[in-house]
Amino acid sequence: MNILFIMYDQLRFDYLGCAGHPHLQTPNFDRVAAMGVRFTNAYVQSPICGASRMSFYTGRYVSSHGAAFNGFPLRVGEITLADHLRAAGMDCWLIGKTHMRADARGMARLGLAPDSVIGARQAECGFDVWVRDDGLWAQGPDGFYDPGRSPYNEYLKAQGYPGENPWADFANAGVDEDGDIASGWMFRNADKPANIREEHSETPWLTSRTLDFIAAQTGPWCAHVSYIKPHWPYIVPAPYHAMYGPGHVPPATRHPAEREDPHPVYGAWMANRVAQAFQRDEVREKVIPAYMGLIRQCDDQLGRILDHLEATGQMADTMIVLTSDHGDYLGDHWLGEKELFHDPSVKIPMIVYDPRPEADATRGTTCDALVESIDLAPTFVEAAGGTVADHILEGRSLLPWLRGETPDWRACAISEFDYSPTGQAVKLGLDPKDCRLFMVFDGRWKLMHAEGGFRPMLFDLATDPEEFHDLAKGDAHAAEIDRLYGLLADWGRRAAQRVTVSDAEIRAARGKSLRKGILPFLYDGSEVPDDLTAAYRGPARPRPDGD
Amino acid sequence: MNILFIMYDQLRFDYLGCAGHPHLQTPNFDRVAAMGVRFTNAYVQSPICGASRMSFYTGRYVSSHGAAFNGFPLRVGEITLADHLRAAGMDCWLIGKTHMRADARGMARLGLAPDSVIGARQAECGFDVWVRDDGLWAQGPDGFYDPGRSPYNEYLKAQGYPGENPWADFANAGVDEDGDIASGWMFRNADKPANIREEHSETPWLTSRTLDFIAAQTGPWCAHVSYIKPHWPYIVPAPYHAMYGPGHVPPATRHPAEREDPHPVYGAWMANRVAQAFQRDEVREKVIPAYMGLIRQCDDQLGRILDHLEATGQMADTMIVLTSDHGDYLGDHWLGEKELFHDPSVKIPMIVYDPRPEADATRGTTCDALVESIDLAPTFVEAAGGTVADHILEGRSLLPWLRGETPDWRACAISEFDYSPTGQAVKLGLDPKDCRLFMVFDGRWKLMHAEGGFRPMLFDLATDPEEFHDLAKGDAHAAEIDRLYGLLADWGRRAAQRVTVSDAEIRAARGKSLRKGILPFLYDGSEVPDDLTAAYRGPARPRPDGD
Repeated sequence: MNILFIMYDQLRFDYLGCAGHPHLQTPNFDRVAAMGVRFTNAYVQSPICGASRMSFYTGRYVSSHGAAFNGFPLRVGEITLADHLRAAGMDCWLIGKTHMRADARGMARLGLAPDSVIGARQAECGFDVWVRDDGLWAQGPDGFYDPGRSPYNEYLKAQGYPGENPWADFANAGVDEDGDIASGWMFRNADKPANIREEHSETPWLTSRTLDFIAAQTGPWCAHVSYIKPHWPYIVPAPYHAMYGPGHVPPATRHPAEREDPHPVYGAWMANRVAQAFQRDEVREKVIPAYMGLIRQCDDQLGRILDHLEATGQMADTMIVLTSDHGDYLGDHWLGEKELFHDPSVKIPMIVYDPRPEADATRGTTCDALVESIDLAPTFVEAAGGTVADHILEGRSLLPWLRGETPDWRACAISEFDYSPTGQAVKLGLDPKDCRLFMVFDGRWKLMHAEGGFRPMLFDLATDPEEFHDLAKGDAHAAEIDRLYGLLADWGRRAAQRVTVSDAEIRAARGKSLRKGILPFLYDGSEVPDDLTAAYRGPARPRPDGD
Repeated sequence: MNILFIMYDQLRFDYLGCAGHPHLQTPNFDRVAAMGVRFTNAYVQSPICGASRMSFYTGRYVSSHGAAFNGFPLRVGEITLADHLRAAGMDCWLIGKTHMRADARGMARLGLAPDSVIGARQAECGFDVWVRDDGLWAQGPDGFYDPGRSPYNEYLKAQGYPGENPWADFANAGVDEDGDIASGWMFRNADKPANIREEHSETPWLTSRTLDFIAAQTGPWCAHVSYIKPHWPYIVPAPYHAMYGPGHVPPATRHPAEREDPHPVYGAWMANRVAQAFQRDEVREKVIPAYMGLIRQCDDQLGRILDHLEATGQMADTMIVLTSDHGDYLGDHWLGEKELFHDPSVKIPMIVYDPRPEADATRGTTCDALVESIDLAPTFVEAAGGTVADHILEGRSLLPWLRGETPDWRACAISEFDYSPTGQAVKLGLDPKDCRLFMVFDGRWKLMHAEGGFRPMLFDLATDPEEFHDLAKGDAHAAEIDRLYGLLADWGRRAAQRVTVSDAEIRAARGKSLRKGILPFLYDGSEVPDDLTAAYRGPARPRPDGD
């Protein structure tokens, strides 16, 4: 079997037709959902690209792998999904974005050459690279945000697009009435068509690279196809720029009560620049139709892949997963972007199609189990026929759910966010180690703990599914808060770093030291069988020193 | 300055003259205490050799480095004291025992050759090896406990001692009345003299290797001199075997109340073989005098080193630390060996001599600050003139205490024990991940938490310094228990794995993405200075596709 692990960047859980969006049509996402299971309570381990992806790729919580923010390198030697799959006999390839930053100092300390196979995999989060392009070719007075090379920019230049950065000048910009560049970085331009032929834009380009990859494969493969879209800059080529308009923009999910005595961290986020922008209706009315157009384009390109798999008979032996690294507030809760723990930010789409007969029982159904993004890695290892190294992988295989079983499951989902490099950290005057947030969600109650001496936040999604009313403002819910803190404390004691010895090896080692002569409890030797003490008996031989 | 980091194995905190032992004289330990500071509340991160040492050597808690039991390999790439010291320009050498097991699978995965400099340091916990001998040459039907080579056995053979394992047959055995080997593994032989000339025994041998090392040095050095003694087998050569007798054995620190409805884990330990043995008076009366003799021999050998440092003028530029990896119950609390969290097991001697004038103010004093074994690594880095990497090292430098300052300090000491490979785990029928104990000690109250659904244990050392009365048996101390669990929960959320980015690097990175063109909050660009958007402005150029 093959595994097609498709990730979209910043795709909200509820911006899909099959998830009930009132205006957005996504027939191809819906097509996979009809063949598989749509998990309706799937959460990321961190609502920010880099940290979230490192959890997808390691199957471990952010506090376990340590790469807690964009650009924080994943420590050398951390074992990834690709390592686990290769051990199970399946190659694991990257097509698109990872947001991985190599641990260059760690690699140098261990003498790993970046151009060796081992070094290259260490630098690429374990993947073999078909094509890597992180899709953010932002440029400023201090140069490019991404120090790497951009195969996509190279592609555009090969198509004849002029300039140093056609990603910015064409794929992510329109043209204004004066004939000037209308940058997609500016929300007022979000309703303009990107100045690029649709088939040259990012999503079709990566789809074509994916079809190239599939055509070149022989043995079983796992491909992580990782699109940058619908991530900002919010601008999309024709015809997608005109498919949706202000009339298709849902009202913002926000409430005046949220601005009354807000938690200081939440308050700092509501005051940041992107939040201020998305609090303006004209921003939502410009941006959200573009965001919907980008998703619709992703859906059409997904259709290209699905059609190819069907036409080549590979749909019957290819597992397909559709997910995202986090959501997008889009003005909900008075916020833009992601990073905090309201559902629009931390909850993700998660659709899993398993072609095998064992999964027939659940096709076209939904599952509301509390799923974490770290569950995919063990799911893939089990699907590949490997043994899940549960002393390393902290997630749990989803295959039982696909078979219609109801396994014992986790009591809560955990998510984390380290905002130490952000302006909010500066505004709050916090040391880096105090800039850490934790979410504990048990399926009904959602607690946010903030380091640095702040009170928590608490929402009851049974009575307040829109998460408007922070119940931690008063004392009425101390018991629930204590209970959720208890779940967080249990999680904090997990054995996450005992990665060099498996549980099976520990069981096998029990009692072995006796048979290797470790007997620090004998009075006269009668306590154990003679063979255990044989090496310590016999006639004393003379000492060479003659004493 | 040089650093002489001397560790004794299984040396109790209270078996020193300067610690008030009524019968044991340790003039050379006392001599260092008179020159420096004796820390009277020093605790190990785990009361078992391997895990405790990995915390000393990494400056990190057991749950952070993951090597939680003897023989659990330290994961490849884990940064050690030696790495930190080399970065500060100081070599770091091993002379004796570490109990390090190399992460062979991890090294193979990263292509590290064990015989390369990098590979050898990875395999030896970062140290350069002057001589390594872990000192446990136990032998049984399944062969040697330690798969490595024994330089000490090679030394004995070179002295003419016969047989495959003179460590067992001579250094750790006497001769009985029939002329047979009287193994030191059997407590009834503990009062016999070891069948070896004293200067050939283990402690003098390692001391001579240490003097060889010191004589060969030029630049600044750190030497970890790590003795196996007074660790079992409990037998010592003449004249030390006869220096102490039953009359010098303190009464066992134990109370009938401890056996009434004991915590199930404690109960399992009281029922194990070594506990049963030490519950017999004849065992204590045989073993403890031998244990005292072994310590007295360690003290005389310490004198050789101190005399050499003084004779060569190096006492003025050599920091000296005397400590141990854990204690020894010796029948206290109805137990033998170590592993649990009563003071005889988890509390260690910690004597630090700093030759520099800044430390003159505290010479000959004691300090009751809550010290953890992980504090030594940052102490050494600071003493070597390095910058303490506090995003990796979890301990805190002790130098402020030596200067007579009173820094802000930790609220509690944490210790852990993973007993998953033990017979107690089998007896209690637990999965490996549930076989984990945690100690939280705030200087007065000591809590033991046990995974696996057990109740905690609680002792109040202010009213019960001997730790006889488990206050968690009733409900009277729920508030203290909650408070201590809160401290454990705070510790559980520490950022232990963000080892690739320092706090200083995070502070320096704040706001940098703006100047690299990441501007996902602009409506029209007026929100930021023109230079930040310059790359996104200018006349639109024609598209090559002519649309």
